[in-house]
Amino acid sequence: MRVEYINPFIRSLDHTFMTMLGCEGRRGQISIKSNSSPHYEISGIIGLSGRAIGTVVLNLSEGVALKAASHMLMCETTEINADVVDAVGELANVVAGAAKSELESYQLTASLPSVITGRHHEVRFPSNVTPICVPFDTKWGPLALEVGFGPIPATVGAV
Amino acid sequence: MRVEYINPFIRSLDHTFMTMLGCEGRRGQISIKSNSSPHYEISGIIGLSGRAIGTVVLNLSEGVALKAASHMLMCETTEINADVVDAVGELANVVAGAAKSELESYQLTASLPSVITGRHHEVRFPSNVTPICVPFDTKWGPLALEVGFGPIPATVGAV
Repeated sequence: MRVEYINPFIRSLDHTFMTMLGCEGRRGQISIKSNSSPHYEISGIIGLSGRAIGTVVLNLSEGVALKAASHMLMCETTEINADVVDAVGELANVVAGAAKSELESYQLTASLPSVITGRHHEVRFPSNVTPICVPFDTKWGPLALEVGFGPIPATVGAV
Repeated sequence: MRVEYINPFIRSLDHTFMTMLGCEGRRGQISIKSNSSPHYEISGIIGLSGRAIGTVVLNLSEGVALKAASHMLMCETTEINADVVDAVGELANVVAGAAKSELESYQLTASLPSVITGRHHEVRFPSNVTPICVPFDTKWGPLALEVGFGPIPATVGAV
């Protein structure tokens, strides 16, 4: 899978934040995720599989998570609770869902979202994957989109 | 998907620990995952999708992660580094892989593993999922297996 796979995820994140949340994301410098990449308090993770296997991580600062959840729930939310976890999982799902439909030749299906909390957590990819990190800044605070696709399993044909 | 889906994952974990690591896992009380369920320092997460969508989490105490990685790498490992991350991802992959082949009617495919580090991280499932938590004790320390399957998407037939 070529590195251009990142573009549908960027478009999807832009579109999701604008239409679902009324919040513009200003994109920063795209880079290969490294130890010095930013990481924030809460992450929504979606696994993708099909004619490629990958992972999408939506890593949100607490401010973005709380404001996004407040917007989605139409109710002010001030702490990371089960509703915020659901909202972050749903956001990751929507971002992954729109992107995978643009990548239809890969016949990707999405797993359940997992949501990671804990101020100093880090989501790490296997070392044979080169994940791309795309930072965004919003009026609510920063976030990062991380996407990595792995080598295609031997039982699955290349696209 | 019925709650019996947990059994192939338990068998797979038992088998993987015995055959890959020469380490017996003594199973504790199976329960629904809650805030009071144990959580440890490092988690390997695999997303599953097909005719059901789910997530498998292998949540390891640092002792288990380091000893398992040392065994797999045939080299003493004393800190959580990229090799340990890869080993934990691979363990999660093997546990999920053997279980999904037992659940073949669900035609599950596995995503890439994600590995979460950070002493106080927590992996949370969406609130419409009832994840099962299975604690194990080993000579290297404790671990927990968590598996949750979600409502089947409308575009996918029930099994």
